[in-house]
Amino acid sequence: MEPINLLPNMQRHGIDIYVMTNSDPHQSEYMPDHWKGIEKLTGFRGEVATVIITDKEARLWTDSRFFISGAKQLEGTGYQLMKMGIDIDAISWLDQKIKEMQSATQRQDIRVGGDLRVIFGALRERINTDIDLMDEVWADRPSLPKNKVELYDDAYNGEPAQSKIARILEKTRHQPILLSALDEIAWTLNLRGTDIPCTPVFVSYLLLSDTEKTLYIDSDKLNPEVINYLKALGVSNKPYEEAPFEIGTPSSGNPIPLMKALKNVIELKGTRAAMLKDGIVMTRFYRWLEEQLKEASSKPITELDCVQKIIDLRKEQPLYREESFPAIVAWNEHGAMPHYENSVETNVAIKGDGILLIDTGGQYLDGTTDITRTVCLGEVSNEMKRDYTLVLKGHIRLAQAVFPAGTRGDQLDALARYDLWRDGKTYLHGTSHGVGHYLGVHEGPQSVRMQHNPQPLLSGMIISNEPAIYIADGYGIRHENCVLCKPFEPKAESIQCRTYNKDEFGEFMHFETLTLCYFDTHGLVMELLTDEEVDWINKYHRKVYETLAPNLAEEEREWLKVKCQTISK
Amino acid sequence: MEPINLLPNMQRHGIDIYVMTNSDPHQSEYMPDHWKGIEKLTGFRGEVATVIITDKEARLWTDSRFFISGAKQLEGTGYQLMKMGIDIDAISWLDQKIKEMQSATQRQDIRVGGDLRVIFGALRERINTDIDLMDEVWADRPSLPKNKVELYDDAYNGEPAQSKIARILEKTRHQPILLSALDEIAWTLNLRGTDIPCTPVFVSYLLLSDTEKTLYIDSDKLNPEVINYLKALGVSNKPYEEAPFEIGTPSSGNPIPLMKALKNVIELKGTRAAMLKDGIVMTRFYRWLEEQLKEASSKPITELDCVQKIIDLRKEQPLYREESFPAIVAWNEHGAMPHYENSVETNVAIKGDGILLIDTGGQYLDGTTDITRTVCLGEVSNEMKRDYTLVLKGHIRLAQAVFPAGTRGDQLDALARYDLWRDGKTYLHGTSHGVGHYLGVHEGPQSVRMQHNPQPLLSGMIISNEPAIYIADGYGIRHENCVLCKPFEPKAESIQCRTYNKDEFGEFMHFETLTLCYFDTHGLVMELLTDEEVDWINKYHRKVYETLAPNLAEEEREWLKVKCQTISK
Repeated sequence: MEPINLLPNMQRHGIDIYVMTNSDPHQSEYMPDHWKGIEKLTGFRGEVATVIITDKEARLWTDSRFFISGAKQLEGTGYQLMKMGIDIDAISWLDQKIKEMQSATQRQDIRVGGDLRVIFGALRERINTDIDLMDEVWADRPSLPKNKVELYDDAYNGEPAQSKIARILEKTRHQPILLSALDEIAWTLNLRGTDIPCTPVFVSYLLLSDTEKTLYIDSDKLNPEVINYLKALGVSNKPYEEAPFEIGTPSSGNPIPLMKALKNVIELKGTRAAMLKDGIVMTRFYRWLEEQLKEASSKPITELDCVQKIIDLRKEQPLYREESFPAIVAWNEHGAMPHYENSVETNVAIKGDGILLIDTGGQYLDGTTDITRTVCLGEVSNEMKRDYTLVLKGHIRLAQAVFPAGTRGDQLDALARYDLWRDGKTYLHGTSHGVGHYLGVHEGPQSVRMQHNPQPLLSGMIISNEPAIYIADGYGIRHENCVLCKPFEPKAESIQCRTYNKDEFGEFMHFETLTLCYFDTHGLVMELLTDEEVDWINKYHRKVYETLAPNLAEEEREWLKVKCQTISK
Repeated sequence: MEPINLLPNMQRHGIDIYVMTNSDPHQSEYMPDHWKGIEKLTGFRGEVATVIITDKEARLWTDSRFFISGAKQLEGTGYQLMKMGIDIDAISWLDQKIKEMQSATQRQDIRVGGDLRVIFGALRERINTDIDLMDEVWADRPSLPKNKVELYDDAYNGEPAQSKIARILEKTRHQPILLSALDEIAWTLNLRGTDIPCTPVFVSYLLLSDTEKTLYIDSDKLNPEVINYLKALGVSNKPYEEAPFEIGTPSSGNPIPLMKALKNVIELKGTRAAMLKDGIVMTRFYRWLEEQLKEASSKPITELDCVQKIIDLRKEQPLYREESFPAIVAWNEHGAMPHYENSVETNVAIKGDGILLIDTGGQYLDGTTDITRTVCLGEVSNEMKRDYTLVLKGHIRLAQAVFPAGTRGDQLDALARYDLWRDGKTYLHGTSHGVGHYLGVHEGPQSVRMQHNPQPLLSGMIISNEPAIYIADGYGIRHENCVLCKPFEPKAESIQCRTYNKDEFGEFMHFETLTLCYFDTHGLVMELLTDEEVDWINKYHRKVYETLAPNLAEEEREWLKVKCQTISK
C-alpha cells in the first residue's frame, strides 16, 4: 500500500513532531476500525505500535511478536521499524529529537502533537498539542460503532450486576470510580456488545459511586430492553462524550481486574462446556485436515482454508458467536512469527513435510477458548522433533505444578522454560495470560512470565499454558492449553508416604487442564521424556478421549482413539 | 536464665515503651558481644530479633528459622514470642500500643525509647528518645573490640584497594559515600580483622570521596604496618565516634555489594582451593563418624563431638582461620530447626536410627565455604527417604539450570522446590544466598528465594544451592553446595541437534558446582529419580572422587571410592 504523508498537515498546524499509538480511548486489545490510524498510515498491522514522525524521519516501535511481520509490512514505506527491548525506546528517542530540534531551531517550544484521547502513560506527558491529524487525511474513516448492546443472561454470568457493583464499591471503600476498560464495563453490568471483533464489548464509560451510577454511551446503542434493565439496576445513561475523566481510579486502585479474573461456579461450568465444544471442533478439524492432505488429487489445502474450516466447524456448535482472536494457521516459516497474521498475500499451501502451528479460540456465550496445537506433517528433522518435545516437556511441568498459596506467576515461569533453556533456547513472550469469560481472551491481572508481576495466582483464575519455540525462517512450535488454578486436594495415592498437611506447610494450589484436544505424538522424541511425562500424556489423552467420545460420531471416535493411543518409551 | 527487668529503668527515665533490635551499628549478621543486649535481657539467641517492652507486656519478634528454638529459649521469661509473617508485625503492634497509651493516659507524647545507633528503617522513625538502657543494667557488658586490623594479602584479594576505590567513586559518579557495613569496608581496603566471630572484619566506618578518604576507627586497632598501608592508599584515620553519618549513601545507591559479589579470577582460584580443602575435611569427618558409630563399645558420639571434630580437621588445612558460621550438627528432631544451635544443654548422642544434618563452613584466607550434608544412619522410614530424595531432586534441578542472562534468582527458586511442592511440602527460607570471599558467608545483593529480588544472577557470583525440608519434631534434610554463576558454553555433545546460537536467543548462564563432597546415596529412593538425575549424581561423585583422591591417604581414598560408587536404577 502507498503510505499517507502526514508532513503537509503537520506543517499547516505548526506541528514539529507527531505521535501516534495503536490504541483506542479504552486501551482495548482489539479496537473499532475508527482507531486503526497506524494501519491506515503505514500498513503495519501488529497490535502494539507507537509512531513518531519528524520533518526528517518516521519510526514505528513494536514488540518482539511483530518484529518479522512488521519489517515486511513496513518495507518501502519509509517507516523504520524499532524493536522494543532492543532499540532505543520511543520516549528516549522523542526526547532526543526534541533536544536536537531545540538546538537546531533555537526554539524551546517544540510542538509535539498527538491525539490525547488515545495516548497514555509517559508519552502523554510529552504531547503539548492535542490534535488528531488522521481526521484530515483519512477520507473514508469508519465512524464510531453504533452496534446494539445486549443483555448477558444470568444463566451464564453467575452473579447479578447489582451484587458486582456493591462489591466494587465496597472494595473502593465507597470512593467513586470511572471505568474505561470495555471488558470491565461489560463484566460489571452483565452486558455485552459487538463493537469490536473478537471481544464482545461495547464502547462506553461507566461511573460508579454510592450516589450515582451512569453509563456514558451513544444512546443509539441502547434498545428499550437494555434501558429498562439499566433503570432497574439504578444506572442512568448520558452521552459518551460527557464522561467525567477527572474521577478516574480511586486511590485504593481498580478492584475489577482481579474480581473479574476470579471465575464463579457458573462461569466455570460454562467454560467447561465451551472447552468440550472446542474439543469437538478441533477433533473434527484435524480429522478433516488429515483427509484433505491424503487426497493427493484434490486442490492443495491452504492456511486460509484451515482458518475458514475451523470457523465453519465452530459455527455448528451451540452458543458460538465468533473467534476470540484472529486464528493463526502457520505453516513452517510462518510459524516462526509468534503472531503470524493470515492474509491473501501471505497465504501458502500446506504440502510436503513440515510443522503446522494453529492457534485459535472461540467466543461462546458460555465461555471463551484459546488453544494452540502444533502437528508434524510428513518427515520432520530430528531438530524439529527435539524442539517439539522440549516445548511439551515445559508444558507438562507447568501443568503438573503444585505451589503454595500466594505464589506469583513469575515464580513458575522457569518451569515451562527449563528444558528449552538447557538447550540455549527460549521464547520472548509470556508463558501464560489470563482468559476472560465471554470477554477478552487476554486479561490480567495475573500472568506467568519472566517479568515480575506481584499478583499471586488465585483459585478461580483461568490462564493459558503456552511455552513455545520460534526458529527464524524455520518453524514455530507452541503447545497451549487453558488451565484453571484451584486448591490442591491430592488423592491419597498421589502422596505415597505422607498425608498432605495444611497445618504444617500451609495451603497449596495447582492447575486443572480445561482444554480437550490430543497432542500430536508423532513429533515426540520418546527418549527425551521421563516416565512421568509419558504418564501425563497418556492420562491427558485418556481424559480427552473419554470426554469427547460420547459427543462424536462413530468414525470420528475411532479416529480420535488412534490419536489418543497409549504411548510408551 | 533469669531475665533482667528493664521496667524500673524505663520508669526512671520516663520511657513508656522501650524498643531493642538485635543489631550493631553496622547491621552485621554476626556481632561483637557488646551489642548482644537482647540475649542478655531475654536469653533469646536467634540472629533476628526485635523486642518491645511496655509497662504491661514484653514481646520478641523473630523469623521462621527461630520459631522453635526461640519458643524454648523464651520459656518462663515473660517474653511472648511473635512470629514474623504470621503474627502482627512489630511496627503495627507498636503503633497500636502507642494509640492505646494515648487514649488511656490522655497524653499525646508517648515516650518511645531506644538506642538509635542500632535501630534502623521504619522502626527508627517511632523512637523519640535516644537512650541505651542496657548500659545501666548490664554490669559486665563487654567493651567494643580492640582487635588489630590485618593486611589481606594481594595473593588472595585479586584487585588492589586503589583500583576498588576508583571504581566505587566512578559508580557513585564521584559523590561521597560513607560505608558502614563492615564487610564492605574490609573488601574495599583489602584489610581484615577479628572483631566478630565467623566474619573477618573490624569495627569502623569508611568515608570515600574525590577529596577525602578517611577510616573512622579506634586507633588502638591499627599497627604501624597498617597505618603505613593506609597512608600509601591516601586513607587517613580518625576516631570511630566522629564518622559523618550525614553523608550516607549517594543518590545513585551503594555500588559495593554488587562489586563485591562479582568474584575476580584470583578470588575464584582461592575459592576452588578452599573448596578442595573443605572436601578433604568432610571426607575425613564422615569416615571418622562412621568408624566411631561402628565401635559399639566406645562412648557414644554427641552432636558437640562432631562440631569439635570438624573444627579440628579444618585446623589441619593450610590457611584455615575459623568457622564461617557456628556449625549446625543436628540429630533427628534437632534438624527440624533450620538454625539449630548446638549447646551443652541440648546436646544429644548420635545413636540408633535417624537422620543427621550437618551444616558447616570455614573461613580460609583464600576463600569461604558453606556445605550441608544429610546422612541416613541405620534404618530410616520410607517417608524420610522420600523427603531425602525429593530435596536432592530440587538441588539437582537448580544445579543443572541454564538461563538467559538477566534472569533473577526468584525466577529460578521454584525449580528447587518443584518436587517438594508436588508433595504439598515446602521450606520457608531462601534456596540460595550469596557467599563472600574470606568475608561474610551470607552476602547480597543476589539471592534465590520466593520473594521478589530484582538483582539478576551475574557471572562471577557464588551462591549456595540449599533446598530443604523440616518435619516438626521429626527431622530436617538439607542438601547444600556452593555454585558459581558463569556463562553457558556447552560442549558440542550436550546439544544434540543444534549449535548454541547467541545471536538467535541471546547469552545464557549456568552454574558450576564448587563444593566437593559426596551425597549419602543410602537415603535415595531410586525409583523417584529420573535417569538424568542418576547421571548427575554419578558425574558429580566421579568429580568429587577424582579431585579429592590425590589429596587423601590410601585408606581414605578407598573409603571415598565406595561412597562415590556409581548408582543405577
